[in-house]
Amino acid sequence: MAEPDVEVTSEMVEDLLRGEALEEAVNLIASIHPADQAELFTRLEQDLRPSFLALLSAEGMAHLLEHLEPEERQEVVEEMPRASLARVLDRIDNDVAADILRELPPSEAARVISTMTTAGDVAPLLEHADESAGGLMTRGFVALHGDMSAQDAINYMRLIRPNVEEAYYLYVMDAANHLQGVVSLRELVVAAPDTPLRDVMESDVISVGPERDQEEVARLVQHYRLRALPVVDEERHLLGIATMDDAMDVVADEATEDMYRMAGLPAEESVYDPVMVSARRRLPWLIVNLGAAFVAAGVVSRFVDTIKDVVALAVFMPIVAGQGGNAGIQTITLVVRQMALGEVTPPDAWRVFRKELAMGVLKGIVMGLIVGVIAWVWWDNAWLGLVVGAAMLLNMLVAGFWGAVIPLGLRRLRLDPAIASGIFLTTFTDVMGFLILLGLATLMIDQLT
Amino acid sequence: MAEPDVEVTSEMVEDLLRGEALEEAVNLIASIHPADQAELFTRLEQDLRPSFLALLSAEGMAHLLEHLEPEERQEVVEEMPRASLARVLDRIDNDVAADILRELPPSEAARVISTMTTAGDVAPLLEHADESAGGLMTRGFVALHGDMSAQDAINYMRLIRPNVEEAYYLYVMDAANHLQGVVSLRELVVAAPDTPLRDVMESDVISVGPERDQEEVARLVQHYRLRALPVVDEERHLLGIATMDDAMDVVADEATEDMYRMAGLPAEESVYDPVMVSARRRLPWLIVNLGAAFVAAGVVSRFVDTIKDVVALAVFMPIVAGQGGNAGIQTITLVVRQMALGEVTPPDAWRVFRKELAMGVLKGIVMGLIVGVIAWVWWDNAWLGLVVGAAMLLNMLVAGFWGAVIPLGLRRLRLDPAIASGIFLTTFTDVMGFLILLGLATLMIDQLT
Repeated sequence: MAEPDVEVTSEMVEDLLRGEALEEAVNLIASIHPADQAELFTRLEQDLRPSFLALLSAEGMAHLLEHLEPEERQEVVEEMPRASLARVLDRIDNDVAADILRELPPSEAARVISTMTTAGDVAPLLEHADESAGGLMTRGFVALHGDMSAQDAINYMRLIRPNVEEAYYLYVMDAANHLQGVVSLRELVVAAPDTPLRDVMESDVISVGPERDQEEVARLVQHYRLRALPVVDEERHLLGIATMDDAMDVVADEATEDMYRMAGLPAEESVYDPVMVSARRRLPWLIVNLGAAFVAAGVVSRFVDTIKDVVALAVFMPIVAGQGGNAGIQTITLVVRQMALGEVTPPDAWRVFRKELAMGVLKGIVMGLIVGVIAWVWWDNAWLGLVVGAAMLLNMLVAGFWGAVIPLGLRRLRLDPAIASGIFLTTFTDVMGFLILLGLATLMIDQLT
Repeated sequence: MAEPDVEVTSEMVEDLLRGEALEEAVNLIASIHPADQAELFTRLEQDLRPSFLALLSAEGMAHLLEHLEPEERQEVVEEMPRASLARVLDRIDNDVAADILRELPPSEAARVISTMTTAGDVAPLLEHADESAGGLMTRGFVALHGDMSAQDAINYMRLIRPNVEEAYYLYVMDAANHLQGVVSLRELVVAAPDTPLRDVMESDVISVGPERDQEEVARLVQHYRLRALPVVDEERHLLGIATMDDAMDVVADEATEDMYRMAGLPAEESVYDPVMVSARRRLPWLIVNLGAAFVAAGVVSRFVDTIKDVVALAVFMPIVAGQGGNAGIQTITLVVRQMALGEVTPPDAWRVFRKELAMGVLKGIVMGLIVGVIAWVWWDNAWLGLVVGAAMLLNMLVAGFWGAVIPLGLRRLRLDPAIASGIFLTTFTDVMGFLILLGLATLMIDQLT
């Protein structure tokens, strides 16, 4: 496998399934990595998905579920007989098994768990919220006691042959089972055989509580470049570990969520969803936006007499409002993203606000001058240039002010700064843009006509 | 270190530096993780940065550079005497050392390398472009021969005590030094001591060539959940490995870049940059946008007589154009992000295009009806409702069409789909929105007045 298997396409599998060439289909699917099976499954026509799933063993199904996106995973699970579900969940990474059980109705989840052989590892994970450290963690780790020697630890590993997600770090416990330190397999292997683990371990272990938000967990993993972050309770009992690959998924998912939220899309939206499903998701946001647009239109409608007298205003309205929106989107995108990356925290709010307001002044002076001079020359009217330029300048201030205040304020209210930030902002820049331009023009109507 | 050190703030360090309490400053800085030192350094007032750097040893400086963002890292390097730079680079991960040298003028880089003791590992990395697999990879790996036994391998590790970035995977070579397979330390430890590595290794190794784009490398690491991805030349000599933590940075950086590009911000923009620096970066994009806005304004200016006659059009202009922009931004955000995530590839273009055009029709019917009916009732004019509703419908089609075509087309031209997508789109939806609304109104001017 020098290169990933891009050559097996969903069309090839579809042809085999439609032609009932099941043995060939099984062989073709088995020849590719489960991650590629999952991608292929996502692209498969809806009506062929059951036949695809019927070809998989419990083991194969477990690997497929590990690599599917949550939404599609849950669709597959819902169609599965409950008896085979328990057998599949026994073969799956226990953090994924917990994610699946969390989505089932509680009574059904309880029934499935009661027949699982891995219930002891999976059940404790269910206590935690999906998007918390506890919801992210796995129990696939090796824990040893600190008085064990390096050679004993190696012998123990040979004995139990742990098949766990994270086998590079061994967690070292004290007599009362509190997390004391961590030792890597590398350190274990190069240590003198009779050294106790306590003497080779790193005791400065960064850890988090189970209720910590998964976004923060991902940020810690990335910031400190950790392969795995232990999750401990208040007495430092090791509850589980959050691994780097899960953190990487969180980083990608949270970025997608922020981008989609700013555009009014739900995080699970896909170009492969049926049109009606996407329409139900995307239209509500457009309709909310329409409400905001009518507020701005209402402002314009109060000034129709001014527009009739100075029709050039209709030409400059979209420029003043639109450029305010563009400038504000720069600020809001920057603040939202830098908050997500942990580079802007609540104590930085005042500093960020001052900076973006200063940017508004600067952008306003430059853009106001350009737009004002063009308006003056184009319509051969200095007063029009003055009104348009002043409106542009003031709307840039509005953009800088709200571009910083909206995301910082949403965070202060413990809401996601990305959610609908853009719509609030463009409503403000539209309403204020129209109000300032048309209001100034009305005040100076004698000079303009 | 149960929790990360959030309690040491840049203000505390600033106070110590201003008060010349250098010993206390050194102790305070040494008490925190290098990743936190880097974050603190970023927030420090510009004039105190040299005093901060003066407190660090070569070792401390190396750790700081490893954790700084590229732009700030390069600022620090430029101020550093070239003699101490070589000593620092010898202590740094060799992929980071290569990144630093790549940014120096070639003659200077050559002079620095010639005095480095790690030149043998760093120099080969410099052949590759920064954003390629070769530019991302490190030479910090352990390679062994396939006929070595598991116990020999452990003894060898004890002997050389490798201090490498990726010490969990050992790469297995054949006699001609071609990559043959990979074995994890876990497998090594649990294997019977006299088994040759060839019998415990995984020989199905996913690898890439050095010229592969780093975004694709990150996607492979995430897709297959790899800790490290070997980079090999055409004869499968192992050139280096790309590690998961680097891939995680790429995932975050590329998401930031896409978000910033869509808003017209450069990837290195920070809320902590001085106002004048940010202004120089953000204004050009606003000015380009202004050019596009004037194209739209030019369209409006051709219709001033129609607007004078039917001033209600000025009220609905921003709604028709703005909602088209919002709908198109939904499409473009979705397509850009799903391309970045590898979920939309060139062969999917036609399918995506059809879907988004169908979405345009659906959004158009719903929004056209709502806006048309409101226009009719508000201005008590059925013909106005018809014109506004039809313009809304048609502009939604424009939005769906260009929302899909622009990013797919940019990718086809081998350009980044995120770059300036939004500005092209809103130019189209503004120009077409005004043209359709005002054009239809001009055609039906007798019914409207």
